[in-house]
Amino acid sequence: MTTGRPSPTPEAPEPSVQELTLRLREFAAERDWQRFHTPKNLAMALTGEVGELVAEFQWLTPAEAAEVMAGPAGERVRAEMGDVMIYLTRLADVLGIDLVQAATDKLAHSARRYTVEASRGSIAKIPHPG
Amino acid sequence: MTTGRPSPTPEAPEPSVQELTLRLREFAAERDWQRFHTPKNLAMALTGEVGELVAEFQWLTPAEAAEVMAGPAGERVRAEMGDVMIYLTRLADVLGIDLVQAATDKLAHSARRYTVEASRGSIAKIPHPG
Amino acid sequence: MTTGRPSPTPEAPEPSVQELTLRLREFAAERDWQRFHTPKNLAMALTGEVGELVAEFQWLTPAEAAEVMAGPAGERVRAEMGDVMIYLTRLADVLGIDLVQAATDKLAHSARRYTVEASRGSIAKIPHPG
Amino acid sequence: MTTGRPSPTPEAPEPSVQELTLRLREFAAERDWQRFHTPKNLAMALTGEVGELVAEFQWLTPAEAAEVMAGPAGERVRAEMGDVMIYLTRLADVLGIDLVQAATDKLAHSARRYTVEASRGSIAKIPHPG
Repeated sequence: MTTGRPSPTPEAPEPSVQELTLRLREFAAERDWQRFHTPKNLAMALTGEVGELVAEFQWLTPAEAAEVMAGPAGERVRAEMGDVMIYLTRLADVLGIDLVQAATDKLAHSARRYTVEASRGSIAKIPHPG
Repeated sequence: MTTGRPSPTPEAPEPSVQELTLRLREFAAERDWQRFHTPKNLAMALTGEVGELVAEFQWLTPAEAAEVMAGPAGERVRAEMGDVMIYLTRLADVLGIDLVQAATDKLAHSARRYTVEASRGSIAKIPHPG
Repeated sequence: MTTGRPSPTPEAPEPSVQELTLRLREFAAERDWQRFHTPKNLAMALTGEVGELVAEFQWLTPAEAAEVMAGPAGERVRAEMGDVMIYLTRLADVLGIDLVQAATDKLAHSARRYTVEASRGSIAKIPHPG
Repeated sequence: MTTGRPSPTPEAPEPSVQELTLRLREFAAERDWQRFHTPKNLAMALTGEVGELVAEFQWLTPAEAAEVMAGPAGERVRAEMGDVMIYLTRLADVLGIDLVQAATDKLAHSARRYTVEASRGSIAKIPHPG
């Protein structure tokens, strides 16, 4: 979308995953944190952030959860989503994985596995739709 | 599959998070899975996929983990990363959150909180660097 | 194997956490797995098993989840609960923590923090009731 | 607090999982929290607590993690282990599962699956030793 970066145009101010990746790499390098950012450690950090995200939803009814962004917890949920994305992106960079491409490839695989005909309306027997 | 969006050029074949978001939305709609994709359910699915990702690393030594992508587990790790990204992106869409923007905002916040001067080389006292 | 503890009577054949701890210790020793059972690795293994447990519930409605033990997933849920308990017990042993005592102490702390008067019927503002 | 149950003798002051189960049941009932304690919600709460536990280990080297209980984080780790056990025990109660029995059964299953002969010293190809 923002080909030819760096400068985002006013029409496309959206940062890309590639930009985020570079910023996180720089953030870690400036603080000399690369040695902490091993795959195992980053996978654990990802777990911790997902735990914080899930905790925001744990006691909500389905109806409350559907409205969470409009309430006082909305800002926290957004920040936790940001944290999860940060560690996922950083882990992908350390492992040399293109995150969006990996997701796109997996989705194509799922599309073949869970055909529209066989899957329509029933997810119960399919534990891993992704 | 991604009709209505500009086709990626040969120079920039990278799918964007926005594209992935739209494909996942379409994937769910075609299968009538939207009612399963509540915030609570997607947060749980995200947990499950992170668990599968972490399991790939659990018994590896730090040295083995650093080389994981070159070995037989590499393809599984890439697929698990794809799965995590799929559910994170889908949850962000359902919640109306721009994932990369949320991460970028959180990173800016972290940069103020963990200044280079105070954080250099020491992450131990800072449990949540993101 | 369970020498030194009162043998369970036919009426109370319940194995104790202490017995489970010893069996897991023996299981690991026999297979020379102690070096894999570091705190970080066991914490990751715990994450993986919790992920598998959560995955059993992710697409169920609240009503379906309440009946899960009576259905075909019941045996899987029980096995996953067993796996989570196995890694939690093993991690506690490696760390030298008495699991039930730690939980009992934490509950006493929570009872002081969340008094009956202040907490009655409202959990929403209290993210961590444990 | 645990009136009506046999008082632990000085020789066996260890609280049992059964006692913990009853105390948690009482704790929830007094606060009218049973309706929050659905299987899905408790599984999510378990995820959140495991995330907090894992976060205590994420940046530690293996050597630091092995010594964690002797340091300033030891008390936090013990409390997090207590929290995880609390939610696991509560979830088991709500589902009607005997936690220690489920773990013992799963361990017996694993002993048959991972024989000493085949497993000795090598855990790499066996993602789920539990």
